[in-house]
Amino acid sequence: MEVDMLQLTPKLDEAAKEALYQQLYRYIHGEIMAGRIPPHAKLPSTRQLAALLKISRTPVTLAYEQLLADGYLISKPRCGLFTTELGICASQVQTKAEPPADSPRRSYHAVPVDSVPFDFGYGSVDVRHFPMTKWAKLMTQCLSAENHYSLLYGDLQGEAELRAQIARYLHQIRGVRCSPDQIVIGAGTYHSLDLLFQLLKEDVKTLALESAVNDGVKALLAQYSFAHEPLRLEDDGVCLEDVANSKAQAIYLTPSHQFPYGMTLSSRKRAWLLDWARRTGGYLIENDYDGEFRYDARQIPSLQSEDDNGRVVYIGTFSRVLCPSIRLSYLVLPPALLDRFLTKSNSYDQYASPIFQKTLYLFMESGDFHRHVRKMRALYKHKHDVLLQALQEHFSPDDGTITGTGAGLHMLLRLHTEQKEEKLIEKALRQGVKVYPTSAYSLLFAPSVPPTILFGFGGLSEEEIREGVKRFAQAVSN
Amino acid sequence: MEVDMLQLTPKLDEAAKEALYQQLYRYIHGEIMAGRIPPHAKLPSTRQLAALLKISRTPVTLAYEQLLADGYLISKPRCGLFTTELGICASQVQTKAEPPADSPRRSYHAVPVDSVPFDFGYGSVDVRHFPMTKWAKLMTQCLSAENHYSLLYGDLQGEAELRAQIARYLHQIRGVRCSPDQIVIGAGTYHSLDLLFQLLKEDVKTLALESAVNDGVKALLAQYSFAHEPLRLEDDGVCLEDVANSKAQAIYLTPSHQFPYGMTLSSRKRAWLLDWARRTGGYLIENDYDGEFRYDARQIPSLQSEDDNGRVVYIGTFSRVLCPSIRLSYLVLPPALLDRFLTKSNSYDQYASPIFQKTLYLFMESGDFHRHVRKMRALYKHKHDVLLQALQEHFSPDDGTITGTGAGLHMLLRLHTEQKEEKLIEKALRQGVKVYPTSAYSLLFAPSVPPTILFGFGGLSEEEIREGVKRFAQAVSN
Repeated sequence: MEVDMLQLTPKLDEAAKEALYQQLYRYIHGEIMAGRIPPHAKLPSTRQLAALLKISRTPVTLAYEQLLADGYLISKPRCGLFTTELGICASQVQTKAEPPADSPRRSYHAVPVDSVPFDFGYGSVDVRHFPMTKWAKLMTQCLSAENHYSLLYGDLQGEAELRAQIARYLHQIRGVRCSPDQIVIGAGTYHSLDLLFQLLKEDVKTLALESAVNDGVKALLAQYSFAHEPLRLEDDGVCLEDVANSKAQAIYLTPSHQFPYGMTLSSRKRAWLLDWARRTGGYLIENDYDGEFRYDARQIPSLQSEDDNGRVVYIGTFSRVLCPSIRLSYLVLPPALLDRFLTKSNSYDQYASPIFQKTLYLFMESGDFHRHVRKMRALYKHKHDVLLQALQEHFSPDDGTITGTGAGLHMLLRLHTEQKEEKLIEKALRQGVKVYPTSAYSLLFAPSVPPTILFGFGGLSEEEIREGVKRFAQAVSN
Repeated sequence: MEVDMLQLTPKLDEAAKEALYQQLYRYIHGEIMAGRIPPHAKLPSTRQLAALLKISRTPVTLAYEQLLADGYLISKPRCGLFTTELGICASQVQTKAEPPADSPRRSYHAVPVDSVPFDFGYGSVDVRHFPMTKWAKLMTQCLSAENHYSLLYGDLQGEAELRAQIARYLHQIRGVRCSPDQIVIGAGTYHSLDLLFQLLKEDVKTLALESAVNDGVKALLAQYSFAHEPLRLEDDGVCLEDVANSKAQAIYLTPSHQFPYGMTLSSRKRAWLLDWARRTGGYLIENDYDGEFRYDARQIPSLQSEDDNGRVVYIGTFSRVLCPSIRLSYLVLPPALLDRFLTKSNSYDQYASPIFQKTLYLFMESGDFHRHVRKMRALYKHKHDVLLQALQEHFSPDDGTITGTGAGLHMLLRLHTEQKEEKLIEKALRQGVKVYPTSAYSLLFAPSVPPTILFGFGGLSEEEIREGVKRFAQAVSN
């Protein structure tokens, strides 16, 4: 059945503090919960509803997207959006509708409500260059009859041959020094971090961290009872004075390419932090999430490579260099933590599929992986340069400052304007351009910080980058 | 370098309370920690060491296996066993050597130290019948160019089409009633349980559980601060009086085929427990780990199918019906918990690979999965019957009682003997037969319970089952 549009009568106030899409979300959610929109009802398209309510399509799109992400709607390809039974079930437990927070939730739906042609998401990678044929061939090889052991449980720590390849690879590209036995394979960065926090909770009461972190990390930390001490960020990394004043037993860092702000931790600060760890017995957690990708002349090796005292825990992932859906990551544990992992090893299960682990091992052993990394580095460097050039073309130094360049898969544009980040993003979305805020990642209550927009370029082609930036520039100049 | 065998001088006492293999483990571990056996040293083979020490190969095998599992040794195919650097690293932090506990640790090494030809492991499945060609073909299909979205992150809750297939399948075979939106996909049972415990910890202070649980569950629980109340087990399930006397807000159960003891929770007790949950607002956690496999006439549907009050959480896995290395499992959440999951969904990452999820979806959609389940059910029923017959042939009712039959992939033999479980297992291993104890799973300090041996039959052929039981019977009669 189709929802009778004339029954949809939200009271929307464009002048209100709450953004339009949040008001609309709350209205539709309320109608669903009250049963006035029953399950399996087809909702009007964004165009129809926008026309009815006399607002732009953007807040409708955002509200629908949030309802989809929250499970109240389901998208049926070529049919439209329908309500699920969740509203009825949920209404039985009287939940309070929570309007979507300011931070954008990771869009987990592969097919978005309305395709946003220019999505500068930071997690996106260029899957068009993923070596699908070769990967499929190796997976099939893993599944052959003589390999039937690979169909059973496998090594709790991760397959030994893969760990050996990873140790060699990390040493080669990041200077990491470890034996394969120090590596623990995981099913993605959050799994590896979760494992690590389990190991640390015995002796870490306070965790210091960069004052802006990825929302997934924030949420994971909420499950633990570590006290948090945010460390202010400077152009070359965390403020050392804040570290000196902290009571932390561990520090969480993204030293190669701070997320989200993109600065690189300087050599001077690295040396100081390693010394701090040595003196205090504290740990340094190095999340090197996009460490393969450095484009400028300064090759800065990992923090771990300079650690002579077993204080650094190194975390990396294959989600960027290969693709996220393989779900493979790794922890390099210093001896004391490795010992703890092994002693407690009955507590853990290996969540990463041994089939994919073996496939990746074969891929690395053949040399194809290293060729792929080189190819992707060159490709991403090129996209990086295209984005940088496009931003410079449309934004003079008076308009905005570009930061976080030279590494990784994203950079930032700090706009010299009074407009709020959220407003700029909404305007961009109206032009079919999806960019991302940074204020949501802050752990501090920052007063009027200039709006800083994050542009990820991994998932876009050169043309899309140029066109996207052009439209963005047009959108925000109005 | 090879270890000088003459330097290996453990003082072993066959009459001591501590088993030989535990004494030997402690000795070798001590030598490694003290640096008297350096890293990268090749150890003597089990045959050589057994001959030197004038003991049987079995305790040497067990001690080596434990050292391997603990990371002090590494196995180099066709070369032998070598010490790792772990001993040196570990010795720097002065760890106390913990001899292996009585419970056998899950052997995570696909190629065991010495191949044990007759391994009655409960987690093993018959991978010879895994539809490898079809699976490989579908995986390749998922990786095709038009499907490149599947290489990105996917749905946090798990791919919608797969959840729809699972809902339909569970309804068909287990009577589970749910919408696809109530399903959360996981990367194996422990991941799903971990997710569930995260959701429950808000309002569950005390968890009641069957008085014997799988050691993985035990270890997972150790990470949470629930108080535990063990419920005594009777022939038809948990003791209701214990439930009535408990303060628990949730009860963890394996109602279809108790692990490890194999009894099925009776209808009468199911009704009582569902009523208990309705009255108290408590949750019933139903781990239906081998629910597809029932062989007797009594088709007992899931507990969830009889739940009209949203109290039951249903957990299942594809590890048994397909294979463990795919790492796919599912939670069916009642509305209140689903709501909590969705509200907190930023806390979670999807650890199960979207590629495998999509592959499984295609496999289920084609009908091949259902055919596979039927085939495996028939195959396992046959093996079940073969094992039962073999046990009955070698053990009269005076010798032992066979329990836990009629379902799942294991059964038990309770022997009427003074010998200890551990001793019987060691004797069996000497004949190349690996069987499993049950006392290690108990949460209670059970005084002299008759030794109850677990036989898993999933991974063995008919001939192996017969020969294995024959050798076991011979071994324990001496």
